[in-house]
Amino acid sequence: MVVRVGIVGAGIMGADHALTVQRFVSGAEVSLLADPDLQRAGAAAQAVGARAVDDPFGLVASDEVDAVVVASPDATHPALVRACVEAGKPVLCEKPLSPTLADSAALLDDLGERASLVSLGFMRRFDPGYTDLRATLAAGTVGAPVLVHSTGRGVSSAPGATSESAVTNSAVHDLDIVAWLLGSPVTEVSWHAPRQTLAAAFADPQLVLLRTADGVLSTVEMFLNARYGYDVRCEVVGESGTASLREPARTEVDTALAHGHAYGADWRPRFADAYRLELQAWVDGLGGGDAGPLASAHDGLVASAVADAVITSMHTGGAWTPVQVPAVGSVA
Amino acid sequence: MVVRVGIVGAGIMGADHALTVQRFVSGAEVSLLADPDLQRAGAAAQAVGARAVDDPFGLVASDEVDAVVVASPDATHPALVRACVEAGKPVLCEKPLSPTLADSAALLDDLGERASLVSLGFMRRFDPGYTDLRATLAAGTVGAPVLVHSTGRGVSSAPGATSESAVTNSAVHDLDIVAWLLGSPVTEVSWHAPRQTLAAAFADPQLVLLRTADGVLSTVEMFLNARYGYDVRCEVVGESGTASLREPARTEVDTALAHGHAYGADWRPRFADAYRLELQAWVDGLGGGDAGPLASAHDGLVASAVADAVITSMHTGGAWTPVQVPAVGSVA
Amino acid sequence: MVVRVGIVGAGIMGADHALTVQRFVSGAEVSLLADPDLQRAGAAAQAVGARAVDDPFGLVASDEVDAVVVASPDATHPALVRACVEAGKPVLCEKPLSPTLADSAALLDDLGERASLVSLGFMRRFDPGYTDLRATLAAGTVGAPVLVHSTGRGVSSAPGATSESAVTNSAVHDLDIVAWLLGSPVTEVSWHAPRQTLAAAFADPQLVLLRTADGVLSTVEMFLNARYGYDVRCEVVGESGTASLREPARTEVDTALAHGHAYGADWRPRFADAYRLELQAWVDGLGGGDAGPLASAHDGLVASAVADAVITSMHTGGAWTPVQVPAVGSVA
Amino acid sequence: MVVRVGIVGAGIMGADHALTVQRFVSGAEVSLLADPDLQRAGAAAQAVGARAVDDPFGLVASDEVDAVVVASPDATHPALVRACVEAGKPVLCEKPLSPTLADSAALLDDLGERASLVSLGFMRRFDPGYTDLRATLAAGTVGAPVLVHSTGRGVSSAPGATSESAVTNSAVHDLDIVAWLLGSPVTEVSWHAPRQTLAAAFADPQLVLLRTADGVLSTVEMFLNARYGYDVRCEVVGESGTASLREPARTEVDTALAHGHAYGADWRPRFADAYRLELQAWVDGLGGGDAGPLASAHDGLVASAVADAVITSMHTGGAWTPVQVPAVGSVA
Repeated sequence: MVVRVGIVGAGIMGADHALTVQRFVSGAEVSLLADPDLQRAGAAAQAVGARAVDDPFGLVASDEVDAVVVASPDATHPALVRACVEAGKPVLCEKPLSPTLADSAALLDDLGERASLVSLGFMRRFDPGYTDLRATLAAGTVGAPVLVHSTGRGVSSAPGATSESAVTNSAVHDLDIVAWLLGSPVTEVSWHAPRQTLAAAFADPQLVLLRTADGVLSTVEMFLNARYGYDVRCEVVGESGTASLREPARTEVDTALAHGHAYGADWRPRFADAYRLELQAWVDGLGGGDAGPLASAHDGLVASAVADAVITSMHTGGAWTPVQVPAVGSVA
Repeated sequence: MVVRVGIVGAGIMGADHALTVQRFVSGAEVSLLADPDLQRAGAAAQAVGARAVDDPFGLVASDEVDAVVVASPDATHPALVRACVEAGKPVLCEKPLSPTLADSAALLDDLGERASLVSLGFMRRFDPGYTDLRATLAAGTVGAPVLVHSTGRGVSSAPGATSESAVTNSAVHDLDIVAWLLGSPVTEVSWHAPRQTLAAAFADPQLVLLRTADGVLSTVEMFLNARYGYDVRCEVVGESGTASLREPARTEVDTALAHGHAYGADWRPRFADAYRLELQAWVDGLGGGDAGPLASAHDGLVASAVADAVITSMHTGGAWTPVQVPAVGSVA
Repeated sequence: MVVRVGIVGAGIMGADHALTVQRFVSGAEVSLLADPDLQRAGAAAQAVGARAVDDPFGLVASDEVDAVVVASPDATHPALVRACVEAGKPVLCEKPLSPTLADSAALLDDLGERASLVSLGFMRRFDPGYTDLRATLAAGTVGAPVLVHSTGRGVSSAPGATSESAVTNSAVHDLDIVAWLLGSPVTEVSWHAPRQTLAAAFADPQLVLLRTADGVLSTVEMFLNARYGYDVRCEVVGESGTASLREPARTEVDTALAHGHAYGADWRPRFADAYRLELQAWVDGLGGGDAGPLASAHDGLVASAVADAVITSMHTGGAWTPVQVPAVGSVA
Repeated sequence: MVVRVGIVGAGIMGADHALTVQRFVSGAEVSLLADPDLQRAGAAAQAVGARAVDDPFGLVASDEVDAVVVASPDATHPALVRACVEAGKPVLCEKPLSPTLADSAALLDDLGERASLVSLGFMRRFDPGYTDLRATLAAGTVGAPVLVHSTGRGVSSAPGATSESAVTNSAVHDLDIVAWLLGSPVTEVSWHAPRQTLAAAFADPQLVLLRTADGVLSTVEMFLNARYGYDVRCEVVGESGTASLREPARTEVDTALAHGHAYGADWRPRFADAYRLELQAWVDGLGGGDAGPLASAHDGLVASAVADAVITSMHTGGAWTPVQVPAVGSVA
């Protein structure tokens, strides 16, 4: 049985997911691809032998679609997720669930137990680096964690980025993954930043301190305009050692008086494996198989609550700010 | 359309291929798995939801099988490949095509143009490290190649390994990949070895020099009982720089006064991506898609001819020995 | 002309300095070595062909001594430095100048312009890694700095270590070097820590945030009982790239399924070059040559003032705390 | 007591040695510096506060000189060494002892037991990388050696370089160090090369195979016009692991989509420590201290004999060629 996947959104992420599902995911194929920009939809659909439509809700309702990947603009997420759930179709929604914490909480409240149809795109949980790191911690190789250093740097920020969106769109991956690595929720955050750089009109880089329930202290550095490359680092310092991600370049070159290896220009090469494995796990889970560490809608709500606390700290001089996850019906 | 793959052989490699096809290859599923040891066949088949049989020729003939992966003992390869071709079914055969160069040549001669149904398992051509390396050469980053250093080390040799089998079973991967990287055939070889080690009763390690038609000189070191880990290295030295594989560990650990990353104990973790991508390309090619750098039966014949020259050099005091590829009908 | 150096203190650091001066510093020799424990003094003196005495003030006054290295317990520093200055002899004093900021300020006030005879042992300024890093910044390779991450980890803390001494004895090196790298003084600090580890009865690790006058934000992690090795790291993140220290191991080993290089068990191997170059620069400077980035007594006062602010923050819940450097006569 | 060193030769190497002795060697100073090009001699002498002369034999005879460093053109070495020995003065001669094996043997024969006054500049024996590597072997960390891979690459060859001089001037370092690391003499060699590169009119790169008495097989790659940087590598493969030199860069930089560290443009930065430690050991030895692994004149003769065999193999189609060390009086 092959799962027929409908993809909503033909932007960078949607087109990439379509290719990954069609080319590399066992047990799935892309049937429909929706984007209001029908030309863009057509190009992405053609690349995978699928059909393009301009109405995402039509895609959700179509009997050619068994399950939906949502990769459209953030503001459209809640309505699309709601439509999928109402149609009884599993949906893998790119983060965030909704642009605001309140809306996310309201959505989850409405969905109740049907929220189990919803998965959230925290793909780092499937990255072989992070899964190795988590296995290393579980094996006790470095002792009980005491510090985490999580670093996310990119070449340049998207147009319209703000100090706040750097948190909700980018650092939110760190906020999820640190808690996931430690198996302990973030309870308190504190926000800091150096002077501004020439490249950005907002706070960039930013440095966030996190406390998790287990007493670990974490630093999250996010620097959207670091310019030198797309570079994600994570080090977990334990009581007897330290474990880190290693840049996954496969080759190295010596030339022009230097030894080195390359960085990608954006997140796609860095997380190609993670996206593939995430989509595969999602498809496997739809068929009753193991969905691995796939993030739930509630995981998305939790990460949004942490991001919300970070922004509160940002607006209150860096004060330590408690994380408050809204209570919702499904987890009552 | 899903390709129904029959796997012949339920040993380490066959079981691994079955899992890979079933779990990670888009557009394919494992339908039958054959092994004379029916218990072993059953275990491997159960892991992928397939049916076990004890007769590999029955598998080849079965109308539940569209295409065949041969991962049985080397001596069985020619008859199985012949059966697949006679049944008009595509076959991906683990190397070697046959244990002897003469038999390989005879097989290819018999198959004639139908040899195009046959692919050979030189999976390194799909390893992201080697494909990056080849792209780096093509981009001119290091200038025209002049030297290649290809190194293959393992923890321990298989029971019954000999000086000769180290060449035909292990170094044969290097013999294929060096020529593939350079895009130039091996024309001459020279074999050398140090004293024997305690771990082996045959020549191990061995050092082979290769000349390719482009004038490049290559060293191939193979050390089956290197004990410290499964470690494959390759450096291509060009006129203006050098490019190398990087060990693909995803994490590193600091503990007990040392910084480091791990090696696998055998080839499976090292080449998991390569096997997956090779099987995917094979399946894609069956459906008319791009089969990438998939090795042909004739590529297997060429590698065997190089291995044969290495063994001749081994038996003649290390003399430079020309490579003679038998002429076969299909390439006349 | 050979400078006759008297060494005060025959502990680990004093004995190490004696050997370095005698064996590796051009233009100097060790003439006297003083320690109240005359047996210890004798052993250290014998190793370098010097004479041992038990009275450090006698050493300072001796006409066999042209210049003095002070490597005795912290509390003895002010009186010894005062004695050297009064005898008109140059002195290289291990940090700190004095255990308390007030005493350091008082000492400097007393010394006035004669403080120029006093140098302080911030040897990291001579470490080839740090000097490379500073040259890289000066060359503009990574753009203007915005973040610094300074990390100091050791195997185990000295007996009697406290949360405060971790700052004044260990992190003080980071407090000096960050400002030196940036060429900008620390203006504000904020102290944080995770839960305690099993290995220590005080706050360990600690994480300190620094703001420098140039607007850069720095993190200083110090972890005295990190157990895995003596490991000093520093990364400077600039507007267009990032530059880091590289662990100076000279060899690497593959064994037992791991690739790696070794850490030292304490600071001596890591900073052997730095100590040698510092002592050489001090001796060169005594003869009118270039003393390089040798730290002055006032540099020591500044670092102590930063350490003092860190401890204040530690005792006030991590609040951002301004650094206040006492005004002293010599810099009025 | 300070050893007054006379330096013969004010070229790159002589000027560098002068600076090293004067600035960094304990117990020595440069008194005279001789070069027929008196202007060049003057510049180098001024940099170290020494006196320049144009007659090297005058320098050797001068009562201002206790010991001599010879860094003049190769052809001048035998007469200068002879003069030093006749004057009863210790001499550290840059390799080679003489341009031809026969002349080296004749010189040693003449010197007899007075050859003990002569040391040879195989500085790699003092490089912290090589000494670590040798200690690692001695510790048994990687088991008994079976293979060595020694690689020497430079940016560009000196004017007038030939296939033969690449061996006698450059690879000779590898020929000495491999035997020194193993503690076993080279008994047999075999020479090979790929096509020529655009950058050189002679055989470059070259690949030499060595057999040592202990049964180890070594590869020596020398590539004078590798262009990308000055890069010296060495890996010793043992029965249970492998140990390698690590490029001694102290910092690394991320910029322009790449992570990397720098190579030097020539051998001076790479071997600055080695030269310093070699000169220090030589000076220490003059005063009765430990001269460490300082190479003797006879070590130079042995390396020249190996180089001679390599050139014979080069001229005889790469045949395995035995090494024949001339018998000389002093070692009879």
